[in-house]
Amino acid sequence: MEMPAPNASIVAGKDRIVARLRAVLPQDAVISDPAETRAYECDALAAYRCAPLAAVLPRSTEEVAATLKVCHEMGVPVVPRGAGTSLAGGALPTADCVILGTARLTEVIETDLDSRIIRVGAGRTNLAVTGAVEEHGFFYAPDPSSQLACAISGNIAMNSGGAHCLKYGVTTNNLLGVTMVLMDGTVTEIGGAHLDAGGLDLLGLICGSEGQLGVVTEATLRILRKPEGARPVLIGYDSNEVAGACVSDIIKAGVLPVAIEFMDRPIIRATEEYAHAGYPDCEALLIVEVEGSPAEIDEQLEIILEIARRHDPVELRQSASTDESARIWLGRKSAFGAMGQMGDYMCLDGTIPVSQLPFVLRRIGELSEEFGLMVGNVFHAGDGNMHPLILYDANTPGQQDLCEALGAEILKLCVEAGGCLTGEHGVGIEKRDLMSYQYAPEDLEIQMAVKDVFDPGWLLNPAKVFPLDVSGARRMAAE
Amino acid sequence: MEMPAPNASIVAGKDRIVARLRAVLPQDAVISDPAETRAYECDALAAYRCAPLAAVLPRSTEEVAATLKVCHEMGVPVVPRGAGTSLAGGALPTADCVILGTARLTEVIETDLDSRIIRVGAGRTNLAVTGAVEEHGFFYAPDPSSQLACAISGNIAMNSGGAHCLKYGVTTNNLLGVTMVLMDGTVTEIGGAHLDAGGLDLLGLICGSEGQLGVVTEATLRILRKPEGARPVLIGYDSNEVAGACVSDIIKAGVLPVAIEFMDRPIIRATEEYAHAGYPDCEALLIVEVEGSPAEIDEQLEIILEIARRHDPVELRQSASTDESARIWLGRKSAFGAMGQMGDYMCLDGTIPVSQLPFVLRRIGELSEEFGLMVGNVFHAGDGNMHPLILYDANTPGQQDLCEALGAEILKLCVEAGGCLTGEHGVGIEKRDLMSYQYAPEDLEIQMAVKDVFDPGWLLNPAKVFPLDVSGARRMAAE
Repeated sequence: MEMPAPNASIVAGKDRIVARLRAVLPQDAVISDPAETRAYECDALAAYRCAPLAAVLPRSTEEVAATLKVCHEMGVPVVPRGAGTSLAGGALPTADCVILGTARLTEVIETDLDSRIIRVGAGRTNLAVTGAVEEHGFFYAPDPSSQLACAISGNIAMNSGGAHCLKYGVTTNNLLGVTMVLMDGTVTEIGGAHLDAGGLDLLGLICGSEGQLGVVTEATLRILRKPEGARPVLIGYDSNEVAGACVSDIIKAGVLPVAIEFMDRPIIRATEEYAHAGYPDCEALLIVEVEGSPAEIDEQLEIILEIARRHDPVELRQSASTDESARIWLGRKSAFGAMGQMGDYMCLDGTIPVSQLPFVLRRIGELSEEFGLMVGNVFHAGDGNMHPLILYDANTPGQQDLCEALGAEILKLCVEAGGCLTGEHGVGIEKRDLMSYQYAPEDLEIQMAVKDVFDPGWLLNPAKVFPLDVSGARRMAAE
Repeated sequence: MEMPAPNASIVAGKDRIVARLRAVLPQDAVISDPAETRAYECDALAAYRCAPLAAVLPRSTEEVAATLKVCHEMGVPVVPRGAGTSLAGGALPTADCVILGTARLTEVIETDLDSRIIRVGAGRTNLAVTGAVEEHGFFYAPDPSSQLACAISGNIAMNSGGAHCLKYGVTTNNLLGVTMVLMDGTVTEIGGAHLDAGGLDLLGLICGSEGQLGVVTEATLRILRKPEGARPVLIGYDSNEVAGACVSDIIKAGVLPVAIEFMDRPIIRATEEYAHAGYPDCEALLIVEVEGSPAEIDEQLEIILEIARRHDPVELRQSASTDESARIWLGRKSAFGAMGQMGDYMCLDGTIPVSQLPFVLRRIGELSEEFGLMVGNVFHAGDGNMHPLILYDANTPGQQDLCEALGAEILKLCVEAGGCLTGEHGVGIEKRDLMSYQYAPEDLEIQMAVKDVFDPGWLLNPAKVFPLDVSGARRMAAE
């Protein structure tokens, strides 16, 4: 992935920039020693690395505003960073940028159980939001796999989802308001502890904007009452098409499981060898989980099992205990680890209409053979959020490029099937150049013009989201 | 409500404008006879009236684009109109505008039950969306009171909700994609039959943008499986505070009714005299409705009844039949008619955090006494969406102004309580001048700058949403 050359005069002026930052921030908030800034050289798309000029870790909205004001005045690009778990390179630095980390903004600012809301510092981890309210029987619904580590600010930037979002929605459905600092240091409040917005719904725009519009420092989130219990069922089929049809039928029947996870044969084999979850040897496995009271669980499972049986499953495993439930989930939860054991892998993220599942899976199989790279599919089938994992060997010359080329073909396939380049990982640098495949020039022009409004100097999170050739003129003009 | 003076040269050039429109549109699509354009002089905020220059009723996206292109070239303001049911004056014409109605864009373009989506012309009425899929057991969830008449394009413009949105969300939670025509005639596709967006989430921005950014001609909507059944329970209390506490406890308990409707004493009395639903004489009535299978309904109602009893209700009426259910809903559904019987009324629309219900209801009572105007409260309590109805006499000089002044105080109260000026009716002209109360100048500046991107000439739906003194410079510059 090509990155633009850093601005040499900014790189040369590092000492002056760091001195200006130190003048307005506490001593320990500014990191400039190259040995320490290296910690910020990449995120979870670790194939791309670049140490930043400096990193700043503010403790308050005021300190974020002070940082942005200095960078704005000096024309220094800023890369906002949550916990650095982006799989799309969303927090990748440039050599001329200041990393602005939210890691110290972790406070619980307000909890209002009557209104089912919590307000937290945006650097708080996803799981620690639930941690703050679970003793009262509440939880925060979006659950990315990285929820132990990932920050709410990153969840907002990428509009993150998770396995349990089929029922509860993704971040944008659970976000009520933010405090956001604009590139020039202006502090704005958007949304709040209430429904709807007067005038334009900027909150919807900001959620998923990948650090292009501002830096979110606080967030008001919807919390939900914890259900009494949950129970999964494991269903195996001899073809992806039939498993896909079963998913469609469950959705159509009006039961709303919290999760419908899909694993194909390559994933089943890999996880079985790695985690020994006792999965059957078949083409496709579904884990369908429902939540509620014991009676609600029974009633939903009855409908689901009836549908599953209609499609002649080769396996239908119910759980009667917490242990059995854990075993059903074991393979799914080990899937990424199992693939990692087999080699390097790239995790894609695209979305498609649910009815296109069988077609898309068949085409991915064909593309996998064409490119000679194994692809495993493990994903949130209920809402059409695919996560193809491409296996490759990073040490074999050319394999990384081949893998990226296959990834691009698969994501184009999602777009052709009426879907979208991303579900919850964002565009970042990974899919930047594919945006022109999804969007017409005039669509990209509108998106960039909206960025102009918030960040006229194009200093925020540079060289991401928009193809370089499309955003080139704007970036030049801004320099 | 002050409206800016029409542009005299546009009004004088009417014949030329109409001729240009007729040149690109079918004969019957352009209405210019003053006897006919009067049909478009107001929407449901009927206190304000102004006949437009002309009205256009296109049959396709191409005809909408052709209309906008002509108006753009000639600098003619355009007021998009769905079914004209706006309570906030969102479709009020100016004397120099062309009304662009979506009433003929009613086609069902695609139905995909497997993916639970439908794509329709944006002029289709809300209820006719359900009508197109109900034989297959599906429905479209958002249900504004005006759903028999109101158009999806208007629902999108105002981000409409309804009584049953507590469980299923409002328009923005059920909208997947749109075809939208920009003021210069460019046709854009935003979103689609899939989760999430690559790059900026413009769909979230467009939903609720009140015709300020473009004209939506087609919409892809999420449809849901019809539940097996529904059952309401009627709960009466001797104080608004206790009823409010009961609502909070139901929400906190984790049951998710499809509706929690709240009526206060003035509304109970008025509806009882009008519709004789057999409501008890008490301070506050709740209708709580749950959906699902018979077993699910029983289980949810058991929890709700247990909570209701803890608060010592003066009435607790369960329904054992369709007839009894209809009687429980009868008063609620007659509430607006009952108030209309007593005089003129203005229906407000604000949202607050649910925990603020008792405080806000008490303050509304005090304000009602101060202003000497009766206020009834009937609203969607579960999501904090208030609809105070102010009774007044339009024929007594000064009463309309007094009513609007009281309305403004009540909406300011919603903002002070941590809420918002609007829930589902939008800002329109009604709350235009209150936007400065909700938003700081820099917040409004960002919203207007976003409008600049889509409609740099400020021709779309003029003099709405943004206070005239705030948007003045822009409107001048555009002229």
